[in-house]
Amino acid sequence: MSQVVEDGNTLYLQGFTADDKTADIKTQTTQVLTKIDKALAAAGSDKSCLLSALIFVSDITLRPQMNEVWTGWIDQKNPPTRACVGVQLEGSTKVEIIVVAKKK
Amino acid sequence: MSQVVEDGNTLYLQGFTADDKTADIKTQTTQVLTKIDKALAAAGSDKSCLLSALIFVSDITLRPQMNEVWTGWIDQKNPPTRACVGVQLEGSTKVEIIVVAKKK
Amino acid sequence: MSQVVEDGNTLYLQGFTADDKTADIKTQTTQVLTKIDKALAAAGSDKSCLLSALIFVSDITLRPQMNEVWTGWIDQKNPPTRACVGVQLEGSTKVEIIVVAKKK
Repeated sequence: MSQVVEDGNTLYLQGFTADDKTADIKTQTTQVLTKIDKALAAAGSDKSCLLSALIFVSDITLRPQMNEVWTGWIDQKNPPTRACVGVQLEGSTKVEIIVVAKKK
Repeated sequence: MSQVVEDGNTLYLQGFTADDKTADIKTQTTQVLTKIDKALAAAGSDKSCLLSALIFVSDITLRPQMNEVWTGWIDQKNPPTRACVGVQLEGSTKVEIIVVAKKK
Repeated sequence: MSQVVEDGNTLYLQGFTADDKTADIKTQTTQVLTKIDKALAAAGSDKSCLLSALIFVSDITLRPQMNEVWTGWIDQKNPPTRACVGVQLEGSTKVEIIVVAKKK
C-alpha cells in the first residue's frame, strides 16, 4: 500500500489511523493529523492544499470530539470539503482519515 | 468546512445532508439533491457534469427508496459512477451524499 | 449508473460487488477484482495505474481474508493508496471496492 500516490497535481493519501489505539479519539485524531502533515510535506504539499476529506469514526457520537481537534488543525482560509460517518474500524481504532490534496 | 473546493477543472463537494432530519429518506434525498444542484450551479456546473457519487444511508434497507429519487434526478445521459453503503449517521440523518464533478 | 467515468486522464470506477453473493469473501473479492480489471481494460488502463481504493467489507473481521486476495492482485510496484472499513452492505454482499485510476 502506498502512503501517497501522485497523479499530475493531485495527491491521494491512504486512510491514516493512529499508532496508539488505546488512546481516546482526540489523541488518535491528533496522531492521524500529524501523519497527514508528514505525508503531505514529503509530497511537497501541506494542509492548506487539502481538497477533500473523508473521516470515519468508530462511533458517530465521538464526532464532536474528533471535530474539536480537526477544527483546530485545518487551515481556516482553505478548509477542504468533508464528510464524517460512523463505520466499523479495526480493533480499537477510533478514527481513520482519507484526504485528497493538491501540490503547492 | 467548504461546500465546494475547486482543483483545476475538478469540483469536490462536501457531504450534504437534509435540513429536515424528521423527514423520510425520500424527502431527505430530495433535499440533499437540491443542495447539490445549488452548490454545482454556484461553481458553474450542473448534474450532467457529475463524475462520482458516494452515498451513505443510515440503513441499507432504505436504499431502494433513496434510489427512486436518485434515479429520477440524475442526468440519464451522463450518470456518475456510484457506490451506496449503510453507515452510522448523526441523529436522524438518513442519507448523506458526496459527489465529485467537473466544470462545464 | 456508469461503470467508469472519465475526466481528462482520471478514471472513476463504480463500486463493484461480486455476482455470487453466496460466495465467501475471498471468492467475492476475486470476482470484484476481475470486474475492476475488465472495466480498467475497457477504459484503456490497468491495475498498475490505480491511484486510490476505498474498500467496504460487511464485517471488519473479514478484512484479513479480503486482504490476502487484494495483496496478491495489486501491482507491487504501483500500489494505490487504500482505506478499508466495515459498513452495512446489501444482502449477502461481503465486499465492495471503489477505485480511482489514471489512463495508461
